[in-house]
Amino acid sequence: MTSRILDAHRDEIRVAIAEALQGDTPLLKELRVHVGLEDEGGRAIDGMGKLLRPSLVLFVSDELGAPTAEALPAAVGLELVHNFSLVHDDIQDQDKTRRGRPTVWTRCGVAEAINAGDLLHALATIVVLRAGGEAAAALAAATAEMIEGQSLDLAFERRPATVDEYLGMVDRKTGALLRCAFELGGIVAGAGAEVRERLGSLGGAVGRAFQIQDDLLGVWGNGDVVGKPRGSDVRRRKKSFPVVVAFALAAAPDRARLEAIYASEPVSEADVRWVIETMERLGVRDDGAAKVREYLAEAEAGLDALPLSPMGKREVRLLFGYLAGRER
Amino acid sequence: MTSRILDAHRDEIRVAIAEALQGDTPLLKELRVHVGLEDEGGRAIDGMGKLLRPSLVLFVSDELGAPTAEALPAAVGLELVHNFSLVHDDIQDQDKTRRGRPTVWTRCGVAEAINAGDLLHALATIVVLRAGGEAAAALAAATAEMIEGQSLDLAFERRPATVDEYLGMVDRKTGALLRCAFELGGIVAGAGAEVRERLGSLGGAVGRAFQIQDDLLGVWGNGDVVGKPRGSDVRRRKKSFPVVVAFALAAAPDRARLEAIYASEPVSEADVRWVIETMERLGVRDDGAAKVREYLAEAEAGLDALPLSPMGKREVRLLFGYLAGRER
Repeated sequence: MTSRILDAHRDEIRVAIAEALQGDTPLLKELRVHVGLEDEGGRAIDGMGKLLRPSLVLFVSDELGAPTAEALPAAVGLELVHNFSLVHDDIQDQDKTRRGRPTVWTRCGVAEAINAGDLLHALATIVVLRAGGEAAAALAAATAEMIEGQSLDLAFERRPATVDEYLGMVDRKTGALLRCAFELGGIVAGAGAEVRERLGSLGGAVGRAFQIQDDLLGVWGNGDVVGKPRGSDVRRRKKSFPVVVAFALAAAPDRARLEAIYASEPVSEADVRWVIETMERLGVRDDGAAKVREYLAEAEAGLDALPLSPMGKREVRLLFGYLAGRER
Repeated sequence: MTSRILDAHRDEIRVAIAEALQGDTPLLKELRVHVGLEDEGGRAIDGMGKLLRPSLVLFVSDELGAPTAEALPAAVGLELVHNFSLVHDDIQDQDKTRRGRPTVWTRCGVAEAINAGDLLHALATIVVLRAGGEAAAALAAATAEMIEGQSLDLAFERRPATVDEYLGMVDRKTGALLRCAFELGGIVAGAGAEVRERLGSLGGAVGRAFQIQDDLLGVWGNGDVVGKPRGSDVRRRKKSFPVVVAFALAAAPDRARLEAIYASEPVSEADVRWVIETMERLGVRDDGAAKVREYLAEAEAGLDALPLSPMGKREVRLLFGYLAGRER
């Protein structure tokens, strides 16, 4: 067991996503494979991820007293936006697998994968509108912010970024949808502006913790669990948190070698080992783990001022502990 | 002058689009260039297209008695969806210019162009929501349909399509947003279901006429006016209306040669000339022009049952005449 937050409504979310993606067209079939509802032969599988974002929406709306049925469209709309961004992200990063399966563009080409992401985006809007215009507006605003974050992330592939710039990017790319998860729970429950703002801040802190943890896994993750081998983000020269911090901390000779490695491809296995060792020597891994704990502590502090039940707060703390220690 | 429908609210639409795309990020600057508000140096230009779709929304809402200010967000949301589809379409078709300017992906790469289209899609939702949830739902449904049409269009590049299949694709790819233009006018004016359905049918007929005319221009258009040289859709082996009809009408030897030409690239200039001559010999050009007139006549017949002013109906007829005779 991980956290009841992730378990409580998993089946309902799954059914609602399946409903949103039903239909006979090649694009819809492709999308059902992408989200992990079906295998390529059309047989039902249980291949969905954690469903963190919709689970958070429903946890908050439960706690604030909204019926699940009213909150479900907002939760599912958010998850569909997240999934549309993954389809396009995989094209942009030229990633060939996700969740252990071939990505959409590798199965049906870049042109059709662009369509698949676009359709998922439109379906997200159709679904979230059932939770009302305010929920739809919050989701669309978060979507726009997330895309600006994607654009920044791409820009950082071509130029160095400071740690602050990196965090600003994460607040958009990852933070926008996680803030939106908490906010949507408040919106569908009719919470006041103050509560919604607090929910948003909490989500923002969770977003930073979540992304930094993800970035640490991209370098030090166990390949068998994460689905990609140790050092894979170094091999892909991804400018994730550990690299940005390493550039900031390294003395001149190390920084020069880092810059040389991150300026040319391919990266040799010897270079990958050296980068990881250098990061460890600079304390980047421990720094990152400390940052994850720091942002989760910030999120926990934000919990106190929220009108959640004691049991609800306990569940959130369990979830935070799980996110901090997760291996995938 | 073309039609008062295209002139009446051009400035208001332009201002509202500029407002929706204001901001300092690289993506927003890119989008202002794409829609023709600015040149690459950020100077204001008047490079927008006909603005057919938003003009139709405002024409219908005017006629049915809704204030322009209330209809404008629906009109602009629709135009932004149309423009988002162009950004992604240009990537898919690898088109290097549009409206005489370099396309987004040629300026900033495929990855960032995917983001640009995605952002425009999200901004469209943000804007249309100001016209209410019903307008937003209609636009999202039309968007999903348009994307399915794009997917079909791509599929037809790999396999032959019948004329009926082709028309089914056009009803989605082009028809969905044109139907939506008429429907949105009805929605913001609070028209009843029957009027909205009639408006939709009218839009569907206009969509077919519009796309077939576009396809004829892609083969027989005057390069100086259309912005692409005569025969360009043949050179790109685009399975547009003239080709689909030619395949259907050609006797065995001609069909075999057509199939050979459309199965391999590059297409020689001699082949381009032969294809155009063959199409003309088969009467495809006249067939197409007759189809355009037929669908516009169908649309005109639909006009009679609509509660529009006599002057409004006259303007629509003028617009239809312009669309049938347009050269770009």
